[in-house]
Amino acid sequence: MAGLFITFEGMEGAGKTTLIQKLAAHFSASGRDVLITREPGGSGLGKKLRTIILNAEEKISSSAELFLFLADRAEHIEDVIKPALEQGKIVLCDRFTDSTVAYQGYGRGMDRALLETLNGVAAGGLVPDLTVVLDLEPEVGLSRAKKRNAEQNLTVEEGRFEAEALIFHRKIRQGFLEMAQSGGRFFVVDAMQDAEAVFEQVKRKIENMPETEKQR
Amino acid sequence: MAGLFITFEGMEGAGKTTLIQKLAAHFSASGRDVLITREPGGSGLGKKLRTIILNAEEKISSSAELFLFLADRAEHIEDVIKPALEQGKIVLCDRFTDSTVAYQGYGRGMDRALLETLNGVAAGGLVPDLTVVLDLEPEVGLSRAKKRNAEQNLTVEEGRFEAEALIFHRKIRQGFLEMAQSGGRFFVVDAMQDAEAVFEQVKRKIENMPETEKQR
Repeated sequence: MAGLFITFEGMEGAGKTTLIQKLAAHFSASGRDVLITREPGGSGLGKKLRTIILNAEEKISSSAELFLFLADRAEHIEDVIKPALEQGKIVLCDRFTDSTVAYQGYGRGMDRALLETLNGVAAGGLVPDLTVVLDLEPEVGLSRAKKRNAEQNLTVEEGRFEAEALIFHRKIRQGFLEMAQSGGRFFVVDAMQDAEAVFEQVKRKIENMPETEKQR
Repeated sequence: MAGLFITFEGMEGAGKTTLIQKLAAHFSASGRDVLITREPGGSGLGKKLRTIILNAEEKISSSAELFLFLADRAEHIEDVIKPALEQGKIVLCDRFTDSTVAYQGYGRGMDRALLETLNGVAAGGLVPDLTVVLDLEPEVGLSRAKKRNAEQNLTVEEGRFEAEALIFHRKIRQGFLEMAQSGGRFFVVDAMQDAEAVFEQVKRKIENMPETEKQR
């Protein structure tokens, strides 16, 4: 039985973590093996890189940052995602290739065709079966993320991406929406709704996927 | 006054460190500002990455390894090499883009055209003024590197690249020699000679470069 590879995209505060936990609980209860993972930081190497990327005391250059994300992704796929899919698991992954295009491409202005090429090298041809884009107003996402950081006693450095200017987050939202217009694997959900409504919509979408049907 | 960017390539045990130290002493004595640096590990970020790359307790995938080298390079150039060149320094760099093509391309069989593209992204267009290739029989290089590792009490893991099979090092040597056939910035030196003879040849080459002449 082949697995199912589902990625979750959207800004901090969009509710990715809550949604992933709800879906994992639901599909586990239905008897499926579920793996929750994330980028950056999904592999042993990735945990070390996540610390460097997100907590950098010194500013690192855009291209160095990009290559660290790609190293994290390459290892994550080889070491974690592919083996889980081969075991027939549902893999729920918090951020994947589209985050690179949204943040480094739309956000930082790096060449998007080049980013797609680099993603291809890092992902070794692996493409998600479904990509859920949690869409919301950047102001709302930032305010939620700020509240969470405060609750977890994170300093400004630990929430580096949240601290970036609002205009940066507007570009990223635009990026996710533009990518999603290609249709295909993308499923955009209004993340201004409450967590339960978001969960119900995504759950229904997954249950109606041909890949899920054929696994019953 | 523009600086001079000189890279040194060749296998472990070829004598890069000794040569770089002799050249630095010579040009410093002639009143030039000299910076000695290396890849991986030339920047603050790079030092963290060097530990991960060279001492990996767990095996990391080829493409993750490649992206770590590129992250190291991108940061090294922005943070260390470009500022030094702008200050008119002679930058002596132990390994650069050609090592990626030799080790990952010729050695591990990754697509060389792709590696050239990735190097271009990481280097942001910076090309060495001179690349010294220290060429020697892999058997000799490995035996020298082994001796040095023993003297420095390095374990096998710390000398991971040296531990790779002889056939791998033969491919890498072939790679450096093929790249050098393009002429241009490459200068191949027979590293079976003693250290003083190698130094004299490279010193003469640098002193006769148009870039050096015009800086007098």
